[in-house]
Amino acid sequence: MSSSSSSKPELNGAESLVQTLIGNGLKVCFANPGTSEMHFVAALDRIPGLRCIPGMQENVVTGMADGYGRIARDPAVTLLHCGPGLANGLANLHNAKKARSPIVNIVGDQATYHAPFSPPLAMDTVKAAETVSHWVRTSSKAADVGRDGAEAVRAARTEPGQVATLILPSNASWDGGGTVAARLPVEGPAPIDTDTIRKAADILRTKSNVLILLGDNALRHEPQQQVARIQEKTNCRVMAESINGLHQRGAGRLPILRVPYPAPLAIDMLKDVEHFICAGSRKPTGFFAYPGVPSFHAPDNAGVTTISLPGQDAEEALRLLADELGAPAQAAIKGGPRPDMPKGIPNSEAFGQLLAAIMPEGAIIADESITFGGLFYQQSHTAPPHDWLMVTGGAIGYGPPCATGAAVAGAGRRVINPQADGSAMYTLQALWTQARERLPVTTVILSNRKYQILIGEYASVGANPGPTAMNMLDLGNPDLDWVKLANGMGVEAAKASTLEDCGALMQQSFRRDGPFLIELEI
Amino acid sequence: MSSSSSSKPELNGAESLVQTLIGNGLKVCFANPGTSEMHFVAALDRIPGLRCIPGMQENVVTGMADGYGRIARDPAVTLLHCGPGLANGLANLHNAKKARSPIVNIVGDQATYHAPFSPPLAMDTVKAAETVSHWVRTSSKAADVGRDGAEAVRAARTEPGQVATLILPSNASWDGGGTVAARLPVEGPAPIDTDTIRKAADILRTKSNVLILLGDNALRHEPQQQVARIQEKTNCRVMAESINGLHQRGAGRLPILRVPYPAPLAIDMLKDVEHFICAGSRKPTGFFAYPGVPSFHAPDNAGVTTISLPGQDAEEALRLLADELGAPAQAAIKGGPRPDMPKGIPNSEAFGQLLAAIMPEGAIIADESITFGGLFYQQSHTAPPHDWLMVTGGAIGYGPPCATGAAVAGAGRRVINPQADGSAMYTLQALWTQARERLPVTTVILSNRKYQILIGEYASVGANPGPTAMNMLDLGNPDLDWVKLANGMGVEAAKASTLEDCGALMQQSFRRDGPFLIELEI
Repeated sequence: MSSSSSSKPELNGAESLVQTLIGNGLKVCFANPGTSEMHFVAALDRIPGLRCIPGMQENVVTGMADGYGRIARDPAVTLLHCGPGLANGLANLHNAKKARSPIVNIVGDQATYHAPFSPPLAMDTVKAAETVSHWVRTSSKAADVGRDGAEAVRAARTEPGQVATLILPSNASWDGGGTVAARLPVEGPAPIDTDTIRKAADILRTKSNVLILLGDNALRHEPQQQVARIQEKTNCRVMAESINGLHQRGAGRLPILRVPYPAPLAIDMLKDVEHFICAGSRKPTGFFAYPGVPSFHAPDNAGVTTISLPGQDAEEALRLLADELGAPAQAAIKGGPRPDMPKGIPNSEAFGQLLAAIMPEGAIIADESITFGGLFYQQSHTAPPHDWLMVTGGAIGYGPPCATGAAVAGAGRRVINPQADGSAMYTLQALWTQARERLPVTTVILSNRKYQILIGEYASVGANPGPTAMNMLDLGNPDLDWVKLANGMGVEAAKASTLEDCGALMQQSFRRDGPFLIELEI
Repeated sequence: MSSSSSSKPELNGAESLVQTLIGNGLKVCFANPGTSEMHFVAALDRIPGLRCIPGMQENVVTGMADGYGRIARDPAVTLLHCGPGLANGLANLHNAKKARSPIVNIVGDQATYHAPFSPPLAMDTVKAAETVSHWVRTSSKAADVGRDGAEAVRAARTEPGQVATLILPSNASWDGGGTVAARLPVEGPAPIDTDTIRKAADILRTKSNVLILLGDNALRHEPQQQVARIQEKTNCRVMAESINGLHQRGAGRLPILRVPYPAPLAIDMLKDVEHFICAGSRKPTGFFAYPGVPSFHAPDNAGVTTISLPGQDAEEALRLLADELGAPAQAAIKGGPRPDMPKGIPNSEAFGQLLAAIMPEGAIIADESITFGGLFYQQSHTAPPHDWLMVTGGAIGYGPPCATGAAVAGAGRRVINPQADGSAMYTLQALWTQARERLPVTTVILSNRKYQILIGEYASVGANPGPTAMNMLDLGNPDLDWVKLANGMGVEAAKASTLEDCGALMQQSFRRDGPFLIELEI
């Protein structure tokens, strides 16, 4: 018993942080380190407990953390290199923020005493971090690093999930005096307001065109069971928000549609709504403004009653509402028959049918299908239970990294990434991480060799694109060869031009350990 | 004569901006537009005069603008999509800022009245822009857009070259009332201070260990001729800064070396310097801090006399200094003999020899060779005259885009991009633009399948990397196949493992119209 705690070797700041993160229950670190993070890397080497997964380019790293957070419902750690490394990862941190994914985002930086000399990599890291973070702190000395790490974990875990950025100057990493910090209690969300629940029940009893709009955690399995009770009693309309971080779909979940992306469709679909009851959602708003089109896609005079904000207990809110309405204690959700495998030339509806026909139970769909995906949802409720993820912040290039991180969190669950080609080009480096970690990701590149969504958006400006515009909207000349690109990063791949070929390749991929990519010509 | 100016159709904001940019003399727009930029794209369609070049991922777009600005010495326009699109391009804007490249950086954004509703893509675009820009403005209404565009051009052209970001809400683009603005006068840099020149001459006359340190525009051809006069008279030491946006090298230019990147080498090389005379440069500072290593790599007591700041007339400063010293009116710069083509297994010195042996006159070297490039410079002064570009802000992934933009500005000059594999993965999408525009770029991927620089940096932490660290520093498992990656983007490619094979492939590539990629195993 001669070794007392006082004789332990002193920790440096980086070691205190790694021990704090592990002690706080974190499991995975997605990393793209540089020189200023070498002491942190050395600490990861010495202290086992965090699985380290590299990404080649930081938007892959942050997108993986987003996908992980959505599935694990707990933060991963990221490790980024200085302001420019953070800058490269901002777009997928933006998506993560909008998805309310918890992330402990660690950014190494210049030593505090060196930064004033403006070395090449010096940048206003705090300012860059503030654009995407709910919480930002710079640990200016080693003794603070453990405490700041525990506070970052607490911030990330605060509902509905936050991006917490901890900036770590290199001398705070390497100096001695590091102190490990214990897990801090997380303040829970506000309780559900029962007055609001009674008002919502009154509205459902007295108005005829009421729409229950679900978003955020109201799209998980359990809250949907409560909505089924409400529908059984009131027969009201139910929809999901247009864009959702995670929507649990398939057998036993509600066969609801999303509010459509195109403004004219959304406005038409919502034109008769007298009142919205919002659970984790808000009154439908346009993705973009267009000349002469209103910002809100719901009628101006439609009322809104919000029974739960994102992060509040949506299941509780909806259960209380069902109880208040005197709904039956349980209501079965009727599933439709699973469709047959479609054949022939792909179109959006038929590809949705293919997904519904073949996805395995527990699949994760990391959907960045953009234009082609418009009709995928119509049949996905007939599939086995699965999780559907979307690009929440509009920053394209979310799909391949999010699929990768979701596969890490999914621990064996098959991830399917229906992926627009133009968007895939933003973060194709994620394929390398999929190969390296042998992750069960099936990527289907929906290859139309153009930014189809922008050709549609151009048309809304009032004209067909001329040669200058088409030069910026067309991805051909030369065509991308996705089989070669995947092979170049160590991912096996094949082309398909029919739905039956695509389906057969997908089914083969489901029996493999690692990733596979299909280039589907559409 | 019935059509008077008053009967012209009214311009929208976007049209007024395109006409302003063209009227201000800009030639090229590197673009990755989205929905909020469709009116700008439509204006580019209708109003000829800007060559539009697409990039698939915004860091390619901004890196191309950097390369263009360094060679053309005039700004290109970029077109980016909202805060997240800007975020993706920040790292190469950071490099551009440190290279002092002029760029007119146009970022479309949400309509002013729509942004407050927090649509998915809404972000603090101004804050993101401020991290990399010398000048930021949001055009809040169509009538201001032309004027703001002309002011952005003026800001970009202000010496020593600035990043000017103009944020363009979509309603300022599509609303009528646009007004074209004429070119604004640019204020010149401060004149050279003749008192300082006299002091510098005294120092050169009286001190024995004086080093003339050249940076920024002092590394162009003409100032070097003046330095040759000073050397002829005083036999003083001359070096270039460690990292330079553009260094004109080869026959007729000074055979100088750069201050080395590794701190111990730099400190040793500078240990005897009594005084620095800085032209476009500053006292050598570490790229990073390390425990126990000083931030300044020059002796604390070394004096500094700055005869020209970046953007001031370095040639004039050096001419005045040479005159003050009574130097001869001209001094020939002796060139060394051009080396033979090297053979065998590549190493850094021999690859530098290869470049010196075969580069064509007027070549542009976009150097992102990182570790392997340490000795390239030793022989490049024996090559024909050429321009050497480096990654100025430490944000890796500068090479392929910078080479692409430099080729656009070079109008037929051969660009050679010696490129580290790990860094190439950040912006490999630039290859697609090279293929599309048939640009004369020869990329040599220096394929060591690891982040060699970080393995070196890890060693300086005091240990060999363990398995966790190596997992983050090693790029193998699976190895990247750069021939497949290039082919996948439409660029022809081949592998080489010896210098003679690499040299033969490079020479073949010089006879082609378009791009070529060589994967050199090192």
